[in-house]
Amino acid sequence: MFREKIKVLDCTIRDGGLINNHEFDDRFVREVYKALSAAGVDYMEIGYKNSKRLFNPKEFGKWKFCDDEDIKKIMDGIKSNTKISVMVDVDRVDIEDIKPKKQSPVDMIRVATYIKEIDKAIFLANHFSDKGYETTINIMAISKALDNEINEALHQLEEECKAQVIYIVDSFGSLYQETTEFLIKKAKHICKTKEIGIHAHNNQQLAFGNTIEAIIHDANFIDATIYGLGRAAGNCPLELVLGFLKNPKFDIRPILDAISKEFIPLREKIEWGYIIPYAITGILDEHPRAAMALRNSHNKENYREFYESLVGVDED
Amino acid sequence: MFREKIKVLDCTIRDGGLINNHEFDDRFVREVYKALSAAGVDYMEIGYKNSKRLFNPKEFGKWKFCDDEDIKKIMDGIKSNTKISVMVDVDRVDIEDIKPKKQSPVDMIRVATYIKEIDKAIFLANHFSDKGYETTINIMAISKALDNEINEALHQLEEECKAQVIYIVDSFGSLYQETTEFLIKKAKHICKTKEIGIHAHNNQQLAFGNTIEAIIHDANFIDATIYGLGRAAGNCPLELVLGFLKNPKFDIRPILDAISKEFIPLREKIEWGYIIPYAITGILDEHPRAAMALRNSHNKENYREFYESLVGVDED
Repeated sequence: MFREKIKVLDCTIRDGGLINNHEFDDRFVREVYKALSAAGVDYMEIGYKNSKRLFNPKEFGKWKFCDDEDIKKIMDGIKSNTKISVMVDVDRVDIEDIKPKKQSPVDMIRVATYIKEIDKAIFLANHFSDKGYETTINIMAISKALDNEINEALHQLEEECKAQVIYIVDSFGSLYQETTEFLIKKAKHICKTKEIGIHAHNNQQLAFGNTIEAIIHDANFIDATIYGLGRAAGNCPLELVLGFLKNPKFDIRPILDAISKEFIPLREKIEWGYIIPYAITGILDEHPRAAMALRNSHNKENYREFYESLVGVDED
Repeated sequence: MFREKIKVLDCTIRDGGLINNHEFDDRFVREVYKALSAAGVDYMEIGYKNSKRLFNPKEFGKWKFCDDEDIKKIMDGIKSNTKISVMVDVDRVDIEDIKPKKQSPVDMIRVATYIKEIDKAIFLANHFSDKGYETTINIMAISKALDNEINEALHQLEEECKAQVIYIVDSFGSLYQETTEFLIKKAKHICKTKEIGIHAHNNQQLAFGNTIEAIIHDANFIDATIYGLGRAAGNCPLELVLGFLKNPKFDIRPILDAISKEFIPLREKIEWGYIIPYAITGILDEHPRAAMALRNSHNKENYREFYESLVGVDED
């Protein structure tokens, strides 16, 4: 038996863009769109809507900006029921860049926020909802938020925000199942009129396990990426999610093809996945930036020294 | 707060031996023993006790046989509180090869069995218990066993068997958390005088998540391997288990060193871990042997064809 309300959102190109400066070429993005469409995945998140006043388009790939015309080129000629999502970060978007939904190929806009900026996030989500988009609020770094902050934010979201979905985002890949259960139940309990989503990072190889845990406790919006592509340790692998879900509308085979043909070669060029420094930042509930710096240094396999630099312990 | 009863058993050399014909050299095995000892790991499983009448010692590494003298050479001069475990398979061991515990460096003997051979396994465990060893029964491929078989076997184990620990073994890496919870609770409920153990494979990146699930439901014997080494997708990574457990006797740092110095180079020579054909056999609850054959062929990245060969679907 399957739960029809479960929606799968693939954010391969959006989250993967954090590794390669959003420089995926059109051919690759079209292959991903084709595979997701054939697999029956509900949403494809294609990138960020960032302000071109804040970021120079010459220094980044186009998926940091996601112009409507660029998105249309990807979709052109491909039969699909997969909706298009873009992400915005609080304080990095020009709301004037977002046309009314009727003039745009975008279906959903997701607002990524830290808990302390929830008021700005609510303003943005309401603005985009009023323009006709489906909207979500994605609460990042939730493992660092205090319980009273989470409670207050969730009550505000339930009462003031038009977003249909509230996402729990385990940015540091530090959550275990028990905390995932606690957060999903809390969000579900407070935000009674919303759907709850889960976005898990894979530092401790728990992204898929935590996603299942969230599904068990009634999260219905599931983020994943093909072959787990994503910054640092990456995300919940889409192929595992499709293997787990029972809805017959999903077909894992186009995703297997995409991995064979696109992602195995890509993995030779850029690094993501289970790599010890990312496991260490996950265990310690820290942002992976120090680990990313380590991986770009000549000490990249020096795990003990890295661990000790984070916990502040002298060499024994 | 930590649960003192939790014991961690590292089976890096034993399970890893299934990839390389048990051909680890003494230097490598001593490095592992040193690291485990320094990390405070409770047990190290060093290999199998197989009959030399059934297997020709010239065709396998020494850790398929684990002569007491070979084990003593590994331990020599290394300060350690880590106990030594060996595994035996039903129908593959000569019980005369096992000396009384007082004459052996081995502390624990684990009997691996399919559910249908539980009577033979009980005979072996009782025999080794009578010789003075700690013993366990490891029920392999439990995802393929019917509920009535599991119930009968667990009742027999509780009533007829001297083994202290009963292990649930997810041989195919196909269990999700809900089934893990179901099996651990059942074993705990029926085998009231035993400890319950978990041995998880990592085909779907769930080995660590399922191990946590088992711990939540009171499993106290936890199998893991350094960097997840093991046949096919490998096992639950020891470094993640040590990062999760709160007992201050554990120190993750010697394991980080061992990964840097020994396991990163080893991974260049032999393959294990999250590899799509193993994920597919996990999703389908099948033995990884077909996937291992694929990985040794020239079609090793042909995932769709492999998937379709297992599910019996024609090309679409």
